[in-house]
Amino acid sequence: MSAASAAPATDPPAIILVGPQLGENIGTAARAMLNCGLTDLRLVAPRDGWPNPQAWAPAVGAHGVLEQARVFPTLTTAVADLRRVYATSARHRDMVKPVLTPRQAAAEIHAKSVQGERSGILFGPERTGLSNDEVVLAHRLVEVPLNPDFSSLNLAQAVLILAYEWWQARPASESPAQPSGVLLATHAELTGFYAHLERALDATGFFKTPELRPSMVRNLRNLFLRADLTEQEVRTLHGVLTALCGRSMDGL
Amino acid sequence: MSAASAAPATDPPAIILVGPQLGENIGTAARAMLNCGLTDLRLVAPRDGWPNPQAWAPAVGAHGVLEQARVFPTLTTAVADLRRVYATSARHRDMVKPVLTPRQAAAEIHAKSVQGERSGILFGPERTGLSNDEVVLAHRLVEVPLNPDFSSLNLAQAVLILAYEWWQARPASESPAQPSGVLLATHAELTGFYAHLERALDATGFFKTPELRPSMVRNLRNLFLRADLTEQEVRTLHGVLTALCGRSMDGL
Repeated sequence: MSAASAAPATDPPAIILVGPQLGENIGTAARAMLNCGLTDLRLVAPRDGWPNPQAWAPAVGAHGVLEQARVFPTLTTAVADLRRVYATSARHRDMVKPVLTPRQAAAEIHAKSVQGERSGILFGPERTGLSNDEVVLAHRLVEVPLNPDFSSLNLAQAVLILAYEWWQARPASESPAQPSGVLLATHAELTGFYAHLERALDATGFFKTPELRPSMVRNLRNLFLRADLTEQEVRTLHGVLTALCGRSMDGL
Repeated sequence: MSAASAAPATDPPAIILVGPQLGENIGTAARAMLNCGLTDLRLVAPRDGWPNPQAWAPAVGAHGVLEQARVFPTLTTAVADLRRVYATSARHRDMVKPVLTPRQAAAEIHAKSVQGERSGILFGPERTGLSNDEVVLAHRLVEVPLNPDFSSLNLAQAVLILAYEWWQARPASESPAQPSGVLLATHAELTGFYAHLERALDATGFFKTPELRPSMVRNLRNLFLRADLTEQEVRTLHGVLTALCGRSMDGL
């Protein structure tokens, strides 16, 4: 194994839905989980039992997450194997627990996972959220910073934000790949194009006032430079110039 | 206006759904927008016309966003007043455009907004995403970093992630408020509790081996210190000790 690939792959957190009401939300949550590399779904006393056929269509390609989901009668049994539990909560709680943003929680989950501590994130029922007795089991509260005038998130949307932040915080997380196999033009290629353009403009009498020519040329060069032209695009622009100038440019 | 409140309130981006198919997704997207302080919803040729009654229930409290939504026949007219357009895209495109993460895009949208440039974010139809002809109108591509084996996001989930990142990147963005009006115990209060505890344990013969007493005491003090006890909690613990020791502790 190369050093480059030895970055710790940290244990994904479990997603624990406490008393979820709608099968559809469970399915959408499963899809959001798999979008972000999470697969450990736990359901505590789902209202309509389990499996719930309503969950399957919204899960789209994440049926595996639903098939492996585990059902627990109580929250205590659902979190028994976890070392660190985060409770998502929209309402302010008068409990003395640290309150983290999803981003802060994601960073902590990764850091603790490297040390061997597996985490779980709790989400309450759609209508009521987690009860105080449920929140008390958690080490941390997680509050999503949202519009204070309209902060109630759909259950699956809340799962997505937590899962998304976990995925973004992976040690291996990178910027999206830029278009590949595309080379910016060299300076010489740009200069060749500028020369072609300026000869063409000189030939057409574009520069009516000779004293202004230098600044106009600079403005044109700047404009094309800002475009970050590729080699192919420079070739295309040469072709454009040639075509526009037509037979009158034969001598250039 | 105080200096503290003078942080620039930047113009929220428009959310532009191109050819959306399901009214339900439009409603869920509207809810996600308002969760994150966005209200400018534009619909380009929605498949089932507009207004679409299917959108209302999933929008929950965000009906105002739906009521103010504007419908355009073409994408070109929908973006006419915008200076900077971002196209969300799951698929790799062979176009020479910068590819940003949602987080990078959010930072740029705020920065440009401070300079007076209003932005819009494009989302394609559920089934196909944006066409190449639509993407070509955008200054930037935005790609959400996701599980490469399962990266297809539901439309409303994609809107949520972009809106969420915009909201998190606000200049005024802050960590959630910690529980207020709660004071950690002073060192003296902790010391008073330790003393009470240790006297109680001495009285019960807890420390059987005198040589081990110092390390056991250290371990106990560490344990309570890690709990970040509040003043009230220290008082409660005194009460607990007193109660547990009952009449036998009368002399303490």
